[in-house]
Amino acid sequence: MTLDPVLTRIDADLPQALDRLMALLRIPSISTDPAYAADCARAADWLVEDLKSLGFDASSRPTPGHPMVVAHAEGPKGRATPHFLFYGHYDVQPVDPLSLWDRDPFDPELQETPKGRVIRARGASDDKGQLMTFIEAMRAWKAVHGEMPCRITIFLEGEEESGSPSLIPFMQENAEELRADIAMICDTGLFQDTAPAIVTMLRGLLGEEITIRGPSKDLHSGMYGGAAINPIRVLSRILANMHDAAGRITIPHFYDGVTELPDEIRAQWQALAFDHARFLGDVGLSQPAGEQDRTPLEMIWSRPTAEINGIWGGYTGDGFKTVLPSEAHAKVSFRLVGGQDPQALRTHFRDWVRAQLPPDCSVEFQDHGASPAGQMQIGHPAFDAARRALSAEWGRPAAYVGCGGSIPIAGYFKSILGMDAMLLGFGRDDDQIHSPNEKYDLECFHKGIRSWARVLAGLTG
Amino acid sequence: MTLDPVLTRIDADLPQALDRLMALLRIPSISTDPAYAADCARAADWLVEDLKSLGFDASSRPTPGHPMVVAHAEGPKGRATPHFLFYGHYDVQPVDPLSLWDRDPFDPELQETPKGRVIRARGASDDKGQLMTFIEAMRAWKAVHGEMPCRITIFLEGEEESGSPSLIPFMQENAEELRADIAMICDTGLFQDTAPAIVTMLRGLLGEEITIRGPSKDLHSGMYGGAAINPIRVLSRILANMHDAAGRITIPHFYDGVTELPDEIRAQWQALAFDHARFLGDVGLSQPAGEQDRTPLEMIWSRPTAEINGIWGGYTGDGFKTVLPSEAHAKVSFRLVGGQDPQALRTHFRDWVRAQLPPDCSVEFQDHGASPAGQMQIGHPAFDAARRALSAEWGRPAAYVGCGGSIPIAGYFKSILGMDAMLLGFGRDDDQIHSPNEKYDLECFHKGIRSWARVLAGLTG
Repeated sequence: MTLDPVLTRIDADLPQALDRLMALLRIPSISTDPAYAADCARAADWLVEDLKSLGFDASSRPTPGHPMVVAHAEGPKGRATPHFLFYGHYDVQPVDPLSLWDRDPFDPELQETPKGRVIRARGASDDKGQLMTFIEAMRAWKAVHGEMPCRITIFLEGEEESGSPSLIPFMQENAEELRADIAMICDTGLFQDTAPAIVTMLRGLLGEEITIRGPSKDLHSGMYGGAAINPIRVLSRILANMHDAAGRITIPHFYDGVTELPDEIRAQWQALAFDHARFLGDVGLSQPAGEQDRTPLEMIWSRPTAEINGIWGGYTGDGFKTVLPSEAHAKVSFRLVGGQDPQALRTHFRDWVRAQLPPDCSVEFQDHGASPAGQMQIGHPAFDAARRALSAEWGRPAAYVGCGGSIPIAGYFKSILGMDAMLLGFGRDDDQIHSPNEKYDLECFHKGIRSWARVLAGLTG
Repeated sequence: MTLDPVLTRIDADLPQALDRLMALLRIPSISTDPAYAADCARAADWLVEDLKSLGFDASSRPTPGHPMVVAHAEGPKGRATPHFLFYGHYDVQPVDPLSLWDRDPFDPELQETPKGRVIRARGASDDKGQLMTFIEAMRAWKAVHGEMPCRITIFLEGEEESGSPSLIPFMQENAEELRADIAMICDTGLFQDTAPAIVTMLRGLLGEEITIRGPSKDLHSGMYGGAAINPIRVLSRILANMHDAAGRITIPHFYDGVTELPDEIRAQWQALAFDHARFLGDVGLSQPAGEQDRTPLEMIWSRPTAEINGIWGGYTGDGFKTVLPSEAHAKVSFRLVGGQDPQALRTHFRDWVRAQLPPDCSVEFQDHGASPAGQMQIGHPAFDAARRALSAEWGRPAAYVGCGGSIPIAGYFKSILGMDAMLLGFGRDDDQIHSPNEKYDLECFHKGIRSWARVLAGLTG
């Protein structure tokens, strides 16, 4: 049996694994602030040295921004397949406002809390603690078996929290080196804090800014009110038309490429027994506001949206001003699912807005980015192996879940390297990532390491 | 003939009249800035002395703000009727940005321009030049006839440009003293720069601010988008519903009290040959946007409006943020006509908004004031006399016109003193009141003085 001694080794080595994570957490690798560039490089070097100590051929690779860490290890007897790539990121979010932290964000500490022991530090959960679960699993495997379970490539980024400007060019330039059978990404969480979960659906995102212009200058509403077109009225009407009474989006061709959930996934989601009332109640709501024939979980994981993220125009200060403004603005975004084509949708949206313009009005659009939805190929054997491994480790059936947000890296592996990706992670909802007092539960770190050992055993055993 | 020698006297005395106006314009009576309080008092004193020199029983009357000037003159042989009140204001707007002025705003100058000679100074048109047209007419009359044409009360305010905080209490406390047969207000303009005009319809104004609340905090649109109600969407839908496709306002009972134009007034407006294309073209528009069965002149003078003066919510800065905001805001105002009841309308509007709220949303309203429309009683003989007088002086038929904006003083004369008001004035559209380089055409000043002499001759002859 190859797995059990590895799990035993992981349990025994936990204090040392924690020490190593603490050392990494002490490096303030804030990628968005140039003042921390040397720290980012130091974190990359630390990881390179650690991976070399496991026998990886590891290097810190320069980019115009922060370095990438790339490491390779052979499989048993030099076997080239299977070949798995692991992705994580060693950079962290800024820490301000520092005054809201209970201690130095870069002086990590293991703390007792009513809910168990936690590792408190910036990056503990996002993503240093998570990426170390994989590395520690490899370390234990190597210690027990003297080699890796299979051919492994590790790919760690240092710009994830600052827009990943170097990621696409680096992947393009090093495509041959990075291509593997599947990418495993550890930057997500458990479902409702306890159930292991594999994210198989990620929504895409399309951002647009609209400016509607009418009169050539701001007018006095006494002088012109009633005769002159008001751009806020025009904008409100267009935005109001985006949804019908049943919550469906009315833009022509909007639902092109949107497919219904497979029965198997629907059954898994129902089995999750998601607490819809608590989900909405936590933010003061009681009624789901989306398409009226869908559950809230479907709405956020598997259905596209049209959302107004900001609106402004005219006089917005204290008191009152009877202005009839010359322009009005809105920021609108669309969450995309399935095969919706962001660029086609942008065109459909713009055409639809233009078609509703009254005389004398013009519209200007600003492109705020686009990424398609991610639909993981769960037919790949890694998914089934991971489900079984996670279910065994956590004592609850692992589920294929959706994610309402966007994780662009999964799409890049597919579009640039032609490889599928599998997202699984061990964060909890209260980890306070991106916020003061970030933490990672020791249980998540420990069981996360064990989970990876089980996943790789399942795929190579 | 009582009039002709007065007109001759006015023509001969014009240089001196101009000197007197220049003296008044040199006093920087900016009412909104406490630094100019002494200058406001000085302007009031200057007017008191000038009116005393014409035989008026004049005084500067203290208020919690700037003083009121009140002056009385007997009619011939002490006759108590008719008794006319004249209203104007001696305070002026601030002058910033000073850098946009071509000269010191309080160093008035007579300038030659391609369109004729103009008096350039802050307050030249609004309202010192205009109020002096009346006083100079009285001066000429007195010089020629040794007495006023009838009993006259002059009432000059020093807070018109700063919200008139003392006006209503002062009118209430001095109602007996101020009450006359009719109030003549000189603070308006010619129609399209050439046609004399008497404003007989003023729109009222109702201001409301709406705040729509949904989720208890700002949400991430990836996490909650599709399931959580978006207050901007709710607000947009409500605002979009305010007008139907034909431009009519849909709020129940909104048109209660709105009456159709009398045929005579409609005929006068048609005779004005208002250049709708130029009116709209000046501000970059080509199509009137209001009720589709009305002309633009009707829209701005005789029809009520619902206008969104400001809107804001969510993220409005640079770039993009996928926020699903917890609240959204709008400032909405209604221009009122005829017998529309502002307070009833406020209630109807609020009820109408509340009836459209989806589950989990709440609304809060803020009252931004209300004033009813002003409908002058053109049956009063002063109107017909003024029309004939103005037509004779300007060589074009004077018209009864509307005013899209609000001039609250006219309503106060009615509601507090029970007297009708008649608004006529000689400003031009390019006078740049409230802006840098304000001016008043010498022609307007001269013919304005002559106009008042004619009006009073017509009413007393």
